[in-house]
Amino acid sequence: MRIDILTLFPDMCKAVYSESIIGRALSKGIIEIHSHNIRDFTQDKHKRVDDSPYGGGMGMLMQAQPIYDCYKSVCDSVGKKTHLIYLSPQGTVLTQKRAVELSKLDNITLLCGHYEGIDERVLEEIVDEEISIGDFVLTGGELPALVLIDCIARMVDGVLPNEEAFSCESHYSGLLEHPQYTKPYEWNGIKVPDVLISGHHANIEKWKREQSLKRTFERRPDLLENASLSDFDRKFLDNLKNSVEDLD
Amino acid sequence: MRIDILTLFPDMCKAVYSESIIGRALSKGIIEIHSHNIRDFTQDKHKRVDDSPYGGGMGMLMQAQPIYDCYKSVCDSVGKKTHLIYLSPQGTVLTQKRAVELSKLDNITLLCGHYEGIDERVLEEIVDEEISIGDFVLTGGELPALVLIDCIARMVDGVLPNEEAFSCESHYSGLLEHPQYTKPYEWNGIKVPDVLISGHHANIEKWKREQSLKRTFERRPDLLENASLSDFDRKFLDNLKNSVEDLD
Repeated sequence: MRIDILTLFPDMCKAVYSESIIGRALSKGIIEIHSHNIRDFTQDKHKRVDDSPYGGGMGMLMQAQPIYDCYKSVCDSVGKKTHLIYLSPQGTVLTQKRAVELSKLDNITLLCGHYEGIDERVLEEIVDEEISIGDFVLTGGELPALVLIDCIARMVDGVLPNEEAFSCESHYSGLLEHPQYTKPYEWNGIKVPDVLISGHHANIEKWKREQSLKRTFERRPDLLENASLSDFDRKFLDNLKNSVEDLD
Repeated sequence: MRIDILTLFPDMCKAVYSESIIGRALSKGIIEIHSHNIRDFTQDKHKRVDDSPYGGGMGMLMQAQPIYDCYKSVCDSVGKKTHLIYLSPQGTVLTQKRAVELSKLDNITLLCGHYEGIDERVLEEIVDEEISIGDFVLTGGELPALVLIDCIARMVDGVLPNEEAFSCESHYSGLLEHPQYTKPYEWNGIKVPDVLISGHHANIEKWKREQSLKRTFERRPDLLENASLSDFDRKFLDNLKNSVEDLD
């Protein structure tokens, strides 16, 4: 998979994606990431890429021309029009489902805005999809782009050691993950739950599932609506609800 | 404001927050950020910080001791127990409202998980708040921590040039932002909307508000439920709804 980033802060992007799992995927050649400095494409002799907004208002906007030319150069290099995602608080909120779909594409290009935003005309011309990572405001699109890359890249075949490694994670199955414990057996006076050292595989799986359901019920009941639940799961949740009501 | 980060990747964190607006807030002394390498606190002679999970399962978990001792050292340095936020997909989803509240605190400490997660016992012992940036899975808590810092830091007094600079942004008022335009007046054959160069302040503000309402209605109608709307806004939205229904 090839990912291109259009940004005013290419060094910051590189510093992030050269670390950790993404860094390993890069060095194994499974993923290729190119950061392009939008400023390199401005036709302004002072290398400016921004100007004040028409109609007044605070701050500066990024101009159309440098972004457009930067994107054209990426398309030339890839050899076709690539899927352009603009990271902005106005986009569709990112979900694990959409990240899985995007991880199947051969290439994507990510446009990072900065300052107060981007001239609408270039957005209308080149943007295929607008993604927001959540209902909050950030300084620029770089962190959202890096979040999207991290989320997508770890699902590309060969990046993580084993597909099972993410199939039980929070949000992958639509539920939150159960509590987890590692060595030592006793820490700070607290022992690992008995069931986890029982060696009884079926009981352990049952405990994990119940903890996962309980946690989702307590913290994010909204997720239960779309989770795939067995008859056993539903019965367990009904009992949970009843015990909460008894306490009220 | 002082922010401490507990992480296995302190260099990656530094590379991000030394850039852009956060970098300027740091150099002006408005914000102070310290990254602490959890690995420096392990008592393991091979500097290990992770081990396999009890009860089986893929991947490795971060152990309790190094995290606990790293946090204690931060509290000692600050001189009191600081508010510890654990970034995890199991937390409460971040909103602009919560970011505004957090920006008023004197100090916060951010715990970044990695690998498959963290031993539950240390989380129960030290975590005050668990925040998720969205319903998707990432490699570690570093990017969510950096997102949270960016979101909070820009609202700390003195970081942005003027409070107005963010008061009209998407999500700040509960609506998405209107389209924006900058020079040149004509780009790629497309001109800036007439109203924005009319010089008529009231008409410009009306246009911006209507575009903001229209965009929110089209892209994120769920946000309208909690937005603060005037009678004018409601009438405009009713007309929009009717015109959509007429088209159906």
